[in-house]
Amino acid sequence: MKLASFRHAGKDTFGIATDAGVKSLAPYAAEVGGSLREALARNALGAIRDLDARIADTLPWDAVERLPVVPDPRKILCVGINYLTHVKETGRDIPTKPMFFTRFADSQTAHGAPIIRPAASEKLDFEGELAVVIGRPARHVKAADAFDYVAGYACYNDGSVRDWQRHTIQFTPGKNFPSTGGFGPWLVTADEVGDPSTLTLTTRLNGQVVQHATTDDLIFDVPTLIEYCSTFTELGPGDVIITGTTGGVGAFREPPLWMKPGDTVEVEISNIGTLRNTVADEVVHAAA
Amino acid sequence: MKLASFRHAGKDTFGIATDAGVKSLAPYAAEVGGSLREALARNALGAIRDLDARIADTLPWDAVERLPVVPDPRKILCVGINYLTHVKETGRDIPTKPMFFTRFADSQTAHGAPIIRPAASEKLDFEGELAVVIGRPARHVKAADAFDYVAGYACYNDGSVRDWQRHTIQFTPGKNFPSTGGFGPWLVTADEVGDPSTLTLTTRLNGQVVQHATTDDLIFDVPTLIEYCSTFTELGPGDVIITGTTGGVGAFREPPLWMKPGDTVEVEISNIGTLRNTVADEVVHAAA
Repeated sequence: MKLASFRHAGKDTFGIATDAGVKSLAPYAAEVGGSLREALARNALGAIRDLDARIADTLPWDAVERLPVVPDPRKILCVGINYLTHVKETGRDIPTKPMFFTRFADSQTAHGAPIIRPAASEKLDFEGELAVVIGRPARHVKAADAFDYVAGYACYNDGSVRDWQRHTIQFTPGKNFPSTGGFGPWLVTADEVGDPSTLTLTTRLNGQVVQHATTDDLIFDVPTLIEYCSTFTELGPGDVIITGTTGGVGAFREPPLWMKPGDTVEVEISNIGTLRNTVADEVVHAAA
Repeated sequence: MKLASFRHAGKDTFGIATDAGVKSLAPYAAEVGGSLREALARNALGAIRDLDARIADTLPWDAVERLPVVPDPRKILCVGINYLTHVKETGRDIPTKPMFFTRFADSQTAHGAPIIRPAASEKLDFEGELAVVIGRPARHVKAADAFDYVAGYACYNDGSVRDWQRHTIQFTPGKNFPSTGGFGPWLVTADEVGDPSTLTLTTRLNGQVVQHATTDDLIFDVPTLIEYCSTFTELGPGDVIITGTTGGVGAFREPPLWMKPGDTVEVEISNIGTLRNTVADEVVHAAA
């Protein structure tokens, strides 16, 4: 099953996604929750499966405004330096612990919506990644049990403003400009994805392949990441772990390859789908 | 005016704080909002001042359960390495940009409540800091205008689990263990604090002074921090900037001085008050 978040008739909601469109779950909010995060918190995926056959109407995709897969995660934990090929291009040592930084929810952007290049920098880079969406409260979870806590997977473009990322050793500023993190096109439930270490990930910029990897190249796999994170913080329904990017990012190319207005960037992961974003310049308004 | 968040009769709310206790604003939630964050979002500080004279009852402090000053910030931005004395003890270079990492809201703990030493580590350290609470949406704010966006100030103990902080170059894990960040005892509105660069900050562990500084030793002052942050993210009502700690932290002492169960740690800032926490061991429950 695929689930997507969207806005329709002025209201944020979610639904069951198909290639043709989305079956809105807005009429069933009392039963399954009003958002994907609420649905996960209510453990409502089974109820949603049961509803599927009863919902006749499908809203075509062009009739709705897409939202990030989870528009309002409480916690977005991102792994740096988690593919061997990316470790090599950065010149860093192979890490012995996963490296985590965070994104705020408003740094995300939806499938089909623009990634925004901020006025503050032209060094906007792509990072195609596998995103893991947590299904239920997870603290002190062992790797062997970790898949019990996974609701599903999606594609993420961990858009990065490289000069701001490198102002200091902490990545926070470069990873949190508004609307830089593409998250879509939908959540695919874990049962449909299967083993997340056997997926193929491809990033394309204007149709050219710029990153290509299989997820078995991950230094820290999904269960290990969940064990590590859940030791220092409680993960909850709708929280997101972005598992790191592979080699090929623009910053380490000669010359560097930055995303610019008018570009189209795609992150395709097998068994999940293709996240597609355009790139647009920030429109700066005077401070309120 | 001082504002504090607390739980009473099973409900999270906030009120006007005095030395004797707190005037609950729960009966006025429709007018001023049901939490401090909501009150700031509604620009209700003026309305709350007007209510003050009309509220006769004061709940004594021992009749309520204290909560962190803002229990539910959307964004908590913490500055590392922002006092010259702390730069010297860490052996780092003087930074040219402020270094920001983040805390999740559930890493906070209230005035009077314990700071929790996690089962995962004994290297629990104190960091007395000045916290700035944002009053209204702030993006692309210039330093010269920054004080217009400040609602007030509080004390923060940016409790840090040092080995987890140093697993990689990103500080996230060591700064996000549950109930490690003391935030209290209340918000003091900006008008009562005056110039935040002339405050005296003292951290005491079991009554002994372990950190002492004046805030004019800050490398990046409050307006500069707001300008920098608001360039890469929109700050909102109830968001918190924790301005960094001064010299004297336990990790750089010989031998290191870690907080342990039974300790009492205080962060006192002139014109604001004293945040006091005990320290207790984590009680580990089996994973859900």
